Amino acid sequence: MGNTTLKKIGVLTSGGDAPGMNAAIRAVVRTAHYYKIECVGIRGGYTGLIEGNFTKMGPRSVSNIINLGGTILRSARSAEFRTPEGRKKAYEQCVAHNIDALVCIGGDGTFTGALKFSEEFGIKVLGVPGTIDNDIFGTDFTIGYDTALNTAIDAIDKIRDTATSHSRVFFVEVMGRDAGFIALNSGIATGALDILIPEQKDSLEQMFETFEKAQKRGKTSSIVIVAEGEQLASTYDLAKKTKEKFPDYDIRVSILGHIQRGGAPSCADRVLASRLGFGAVIGLMKGLTNVMAGIRSNDLVFTPIEDAITKHNEINQDLLQISEVLAM
Amino acid sequence: MGNTTLKKIGVLTSGGDAPGMNAAIRAVVRTAHYYKIECVGIRGGYTGLIEGNFTKMGPRSVSNIINLGGTILRSARSAEFRTPEGRKKAYEQCVAHNIDALVCIGGDGTFTGALKFSEEFGIKVLGVPGTIDNDIFGTDFTIGYDTALNTAIDAIDKIRDTATSHSRVFFVEVMGRDAGFIALNSGIATGALDILIPEQKDSLEQMFETFEKAQKRGKTSSIVIVAEGEQLASTYDLAKKTKEKFPDYDIRVSILGHIQRGGAPSCADRVLASRLGFGAVIGLMKGLTNVMAGIRSNDLVFTPIEDAITKHNEINQDLLQISEVLAM
Amino acid sequence: MGNTTLKKIGVLTSGGDAPGMNAAIRAVVRTAHYYKIECVGIRGGYTGLIEGNFTKMGPRSVSNIINLGGTILRSARSAEFRTPEGRKKAYEQCVAHNIDALVCIGGDGTFTGALKFSEEFGIKVLGVPGTIDNDIFGTDFTIGYDTALNTAIDAIDKIRDTATSHSRVFFVEVMGRDAGFIALNSGIATGALDILIPEQKDSLEQMFETFEKAQKRGKTSSIVIVAEGEQLASTYDLAKKTKEKFPDYDIRVSILGHIQRGGAPSCADRVLASRLGFGAVIGLMKGLTNVMAGIRSNDLVFTPIEDAITKHNEINQDLLQISEVLAM
Amino acid sequence: MGNTTLKKIGVLTSGGDAPGMNAAIRAVVRTAHYYKIECVGIRGGYTGLIEGNFTKMGPRSVSNIINLGGTILRSARSAEFRTPEGRKKAYEQCVAHNIDALVCIGGDGTFTGALKFSEEFGIKVLGVPGTIDNDIFGTDFTIGYDTALNTAIDAIDKIRDTATSHSRVFFVEVMGRDAGFIALNSGIATGALDILIPEQKDSLEQMFETFEKAQKRGKTSSIVIVAEGEQLASTYDLAKKTKEKFPDYDIRVSILGHIQRGGAPSCADRVLASRLGFGAVIGLMKGLTNVMAGIRSNDLVFTPIEDAITKHNEINQDLLQISEVLAM
Repeated sequence: MGNTTLKKIGVLTSGGDAPGMNAAIRAVVRTAHYYKIECVGIRGGYTGLIEGNFTKMGPRSVSNIINLGGTILRSARSAEFRTPEGRKKAYEQCVAHNIDALVCIGGDGTFTGALKFSEEFGIKVLGVPGTIDNDIFGTDFTIGYDTALNTAIDAIDKIRDTATSHSRVFFVEVMGRDAGFIALNSGIATGALDILIPEQKDSLEQMFETFEKAQKRGKTSSIVIVAEGEQLASTYDLAKKTKEKFPDYDIRVSILGHIQRGGAPSCADRVLASRLGFGAVIGLMKGLTNVMAGIRSNDLVFTPIEDAITKHNEINQDLLQISEVLAM
Repeated sequence: MGNTTLKKIGVLTSGGDAPGMNAAIRAVVRTAHYYKIECVGIRGGYTGLIEGNFTKMGPRSVSNIINLGGTILRSARSAEFRTPEGRKKAYEQCVAHNIDALVCIGGDGTFTGALKFSEEFGIKVLGVPGTIDNDIFGTDFTIGYDTALNTAIDAIDKIRDTATSHSRVFFVEVMGRDAGFIALNSGIATGALDILIPEQKDSLEQMFETFEKAQKRGKTSSIVIVAEGEQLASTYDLAKKTKEKFPDYDIRVSILGHIQRGGAPSCADRVLASRLGFGAVIGLMKGLTNVMAGIRSNDLVFTPIEDAITKHNEINQDLLQISEVLAM
Repeated sequence: MGNTTLKKIGVLTSGGDAPGMNAAIRAVVRTAHYYKIECVGIRGGYTGLIEGNFTKMGPRSVSNIINLGGTILRSARSAEFRTPEGRKKAYEQCVAHNIDALVCIGGDGTFTGALKFSEEFGIKVLGVPGTIDNDIFGTDFTIGYDTALNTAIDAIDKIRDTATSHSRVFFVEVMGRDAGFIALNSGIATGALDILIPEQKDSLEQMFETFEKAQKRGKTSSIVIVAEGEQLASTYDLAKKTKEKFPDYDIRVSILGHIQRGGAPSCADRVLASRLGFGAVIGLMKGLTNVMAGIRSNDLVFTPIEDAITKHNEINQDLLQISEVLAM
Repeated sequence: MGNTTLKKIGVLTSGGDAPGMNAAIRAVVRTAHYYKIECVGIRGGYTGLIEGNFTKMGPRSVSNIINLGGTILRSARSAEFRTPEGRKKAYEQCVAHNIDALVCIGGDGTFTGALKFSEEFGIKVLGVPGTIDNDIFGTDFTIGYDTALNTAIDAIDKIRDTATSHSRVFFVEVMGRDAGFIALNSGIATGALDILIPEQKDSLEQMFETFEKAQKRGKTSSIVIVAEGEQLASTYDLAKKTKEKFPDYDIRVSILGHIQRGGAPSCADRVLASRLGFGAVIGLMKGLTNVMAGIRSNDLVFTPIEDAITKHNEINQDLLQISEVLAM
């Protein structure tokens, strides 16, 4: 593969961290090295880009990180990068350090910034989708999503032990501010009685009806999974209203929270991150810019960042039906 | 070992469930079978005892449960058993079913009820300490405590991944309404900056000072472990007050909650539960009553239930010192 | 969805067990119930079919199994079912019990038997791919594969701890008699130095060269992943020959073995199994027979069993390249 | 606490690695720092001591290692240190680097070397028991043992899934060359049918009898745990002889191997390692030498290394009885 123009790239992680980001960094660094492209790590996301917080990276700088959660380059949300002045400074750092292109690992906030930056200053950018929410168009899965699912079901399985032992009803809130992917899949995987997600219009009446049916079938304990971004009510309010309706229920709430962001990445996430990190460098070598690397139907594809941040992966309708049929 | 008088025993789990309770039930049932004593399982704790919700148990009824969290006999807190009328009904059930003695697996609430019941009606009772809180006198460890610790540190390790990646401060609340054992040990095991437990008088000033020292040493992310029963303030209020003092900190709260009660028991908990369940039957065969089986310095010992519920295991002062010295 | 003809189905698991089989059984049973189709579980695979080892199953018979490894219906390889007499007896059992159709969960051995049985006796059969090896055509993933991958990398991560601490070379054998999917993916996910799979022609010279390059780069410990079905040599012989070539190496062998078949299924496997079990009943209701339910590009598809057992999923060439580029 | 004489200590890990060694290193380094004692890490065990492979360590050099398996200082077995010349070189390195005392983390091989070295050259040595085998006198538990137990039962639970599904008999070999602690405890914790350990005289007849009894009780699958150091026969031979005796059994062997040495340490191991690392420095400050730090009945104690390597913790007879009574 010829690479006449790309001399030096920067890699950064930005936004909420996700398990597998380190595997992606490793893949970017080692692929760059393999093709004799210099690589610098940018610490602390766009803030580090603005401040020139750079570190030269070689194959050994990413040894023994493929299995670590978090991101060795750290992450941050940068208010300054949202201003033209901030991006100008970032550009000057790129120039000063001879950086030709950036690999930006993160979610839609990360990509929005990258796109703007690239359009303004002509620095090539290539996005890698790293977010547990799986809410990025242009890839079947985002890095960290599979691990977050496994973390969630591991926690919900534990909660089910105690729910069953005490004949309790648990409302478990999982992450997903705009998307119900984690809720829907973890709910199916743990046999949740009901699953509430932002993509679907839910009503208390429907939920209460589901409870009543379950009661009639002799179910003595239940788990309801609620996506963080559920519109109907907060998880605590859902629990409160259910208690008002069914005063006999012994109801508890559990907010899984930040454990969903951490932990050793699953095999699928490590392989995905390795493929996308590799693909990002390949894409830049081919001269691509303003695109995101993704895997669709097991193939590496590149999607305009514009599409990645404006279009949406639809919730699979089959899954919604299955969640209803199987929860008894 | 001679057993001339004991013909039939009942076993129940009561109070908050704890991983390893199933292993204890299994040990009671199989030991009873081995010594040709009949055994009935009582479903739903003291409520089941009052209602005669009994099931005959043999060696095969407890196959493949040693590794399961929760309790196959279910648990509950029974208001009725706290009344003389409730206990009278329970006694009548014992008489009707020829039950000579009870093995009561649970915490201090469970033992308080058992003691009263035994004193009033002469039914022999033998307690087995099953609670994640480790707050029972007369045993080095309670069933479920070791598993809860491992669940807690697994979650805190995950939180640390994201704390480190984002330079955040996390307040993590672990279980322990009256006791700081989980907080202190999980805090040491995860390198927590500070650990707040009910056994120790804490102050905001001390905590803030600890933060300041850490900051000076260049620490950019920190975890503070708070026991549920901490007296100083609620975990959310601690976070709020810290934010007021240090407005620059990016502070998050995570309440680990009920995941700490579930999950496959650890090896130590399975062995402990097996020893205590075995020991409970042996104790009853020896004619003991109103005592609790425990393991102290690796030996099976029996402690009067009276002591088990009134005396307290002290927090190890060495551990408090170690937590300070090692957290930098 | 109309279902005028299907009255009663049987479900069985056969061949090597795989995590998620229980989730598939649950989905078959509950979907059948939802559509008012009777369902019997057949215990012990085709042997149970021949012997009429049947059990009526309803929604509650599959409660709390979605998270369990193994198969509650047990599995076996049946020599008798490979004979015309055996299949005749199986047919008579179906007739005697009014079974219209079978859902057969397993791998290619299972499907071969199902196809023959269906062709001979006209009993409808629908296959569900359950095998950790992922070597079935007609589905992107087989049930159990994702869990086996996670089990494998969890073990290899542990081995790497000790490999790194002692500067050792480990040859780790993973499952996959005919297919290198587990080896290739777990190898990439753990940063293996080399990966030997049956789909690729390997040579000792190449492997030794890889070792030499690694040594030059200063790598002091290495892991080589070997698929069970590797043609070059047995894992022990590979280790032996490597020792002869590099007498200074401290070389160990680890055969991961049967741990790869067990354990709580991953989220992906539970969801996959739920979709395929649901899909199997839907397929039978539509009148399909001699097909296998699969998921391709996130859609439910049906593939002739004939194709499922004769065609093969190809190893992704990108992955082979990535494994080389990233292993340094 | 006064410390007038101790200026600089070295810390090393030697022999087989064990989870929690990093937590012990961290505790040594931070406690030394707290008491203003300089600390150097010695890389690669006694080999590193001989070669002067030293690295200055401060509080930050041990950040984020408390949860990592393996040992960041690496380990090795050193033939040279067993010679007087080797130890002489090691002494010269200590003199050249002004090292007053050594903390030696490892098992009995490590301690034997330390004792000899100290006796010959007067360098103070303090041992910390780090080995998964738990075969060191003077402490209730060694660092790594609890984690190894949890790793073992996690693997055996998985094997049981497949054993049960296929009605198989599994011989599972766990670590323990001279001691049966891992075998006995993991066997009880997983409901093994039989447990073979070097401390007990076993016979094939007894084992076959156990199989026959189990068969009569209707048990269709079984697990036998064999300690690595079992004297009766190798695990493969035990399986072979059992097959000869019971040709109908479907028998498999699984050697758990090196996975037992790795992985994130359990909470108990991290706390134990923290206490012992802390205690080691305290001991040296008190002027102790040729002793090993241990925890007995929850108290820090120091035992002459001479005793630690010659005396033995006895297998608890209760556990042997319990393993028989509960395995049905």
